[in-house]
Amino acid sequence: MPAIPVEFWFEFASSYSYLAAQRIDRLARPAGVEVIWRPFLLGPVFLSLGWNDSPFNIYPPKGRYMWRDLARLCAKYELPFRLPSQFPRNGLLAARLTLAAGREPWMPDFVRAVLRANFGEDRDISQPAVIREVLADLGVAPEPWLEAAAHDEVKTALRRQTERATELGIFGAPTFLVGGEMFWGNDRLEDALAWATQPPG
Amino acid sequence: MPAIPVEFWFEFASSYSYLAAQRIDRLARPAGVEVIWRPFLLGPVFLSLGWNDSPFNIYPPKGRYMWRDLARLCAKYELPFRLPSQFPRNGLLAARLTLAAGREPWMPDFVRAVLRANFGEDRDISQPAVIREVLADLGVAPEPWLEAAAHDEVKTALRRQTERATELGIFGAPTFLVGGEMFWGNDRLEDALAWATQPPG
Repeated sequence: MPAIPVEFWFEFASSYSYLAAQRIDRLARPAGVEVIWRPFLLGPVFLSLGWNDSPFNIYPPKGRYMWRDLARLCAKYELPFRLPSQFPRNGLLAARLTLAAGREPWMPDFVRAVLRANFGEDRDISQPAVIREVLADLGVAPEPWLEAAAHDEVKTALRRQTERATELGIFGAPTFLVGGEMFWGNDRLEDALAWATQPPG
Repeated sequence: MPAIPVEFWFEFASSYSYLAAQRIDRLARPAGVEVIWRPFLLGPVFLSLGWNDSPFNIYPPKGRYMWRDLARLCAKYELPFRLPSQFPRNGLLAARLTLAAGREPWMPDFVRAVLRANFGEDRDISQPAVIREVLADLGVAPEPWLEAAAHDEVKTALRRQTERATELGIFGAPTFLVGGEMFWGNDRLEDALAWATQPPG
């Protein structure tokens, strides 16, 4: 039986999305699992839960713990980590550009590079200049993609995808959807992939 | 170098404390790690964060996900699971009795049995009758321990331990403290034990 594709719902402002984005292809590829990249915005999702900011800012003990946990996990996974001087950063442009890129072969590398810029290099990913640099570093001409990201249909697609997240019951990022099954958090990546290849009974 | 002891902070109303309590000795013993059992009450901790109920009740999408996640994890760990008809249940009596029991050899089994009653058998652990049955099943005479649990010094000790949790920055259960290092959630049990035996340079 072929593996079930895994929808990877992520947000560029989300610290644990950083970890999952760096890990998912390395684990999914040998397992023969297709990854469908689903950028969305957590802001509207959080608003629907009554939060007008990241819960890591609203609840300081949770926030302090998260940054320490993230530093430890980056050490464990051998990923660069630098405490962002601003959190959360606006991932709107990066999310639109990811949707505009569709299935371009460089898209997953773009996602990983933007998340690394945010959490591994303390760069302001809300700025077009930073997104331009990331694209250029990947050997992709920036301007056509920045233009594409500004098209109305791309803006609408991101709005729809974000609404869909709430409809699906998504309340945080990263979230993995495998068939009808939801797995929340970088910690569940392995379980999500196991479900994709060997769904129980 | 001897391993650092692991403080296991748990609450009888906490679903993920159930998983951690069943797993911790099996993992800690072969690693030579001492476990210090620290019952506390999440209610006052949650109140200090502005929650007057479990966040799994306050935020329905989180709650729905948690129960599905718990069912899946119980299947994975081969633990009994029955959706509790009441959540959260008051763990005050069980927490006091655990503190009264101190280092009695049956204490960890008592903790595991009460958590299993709550999340594996849908029994109302707030009721003295249920606690009596759990003790009797362990071959422990219930009455002296129910009396001990009602002593003022035990009540004070639980209040102090709960205050200490907030002071330490604990915001949920289970939490593992290893030296000065905090690990939150059943998902971090393995990392906490690894830190206890091999703290990084």
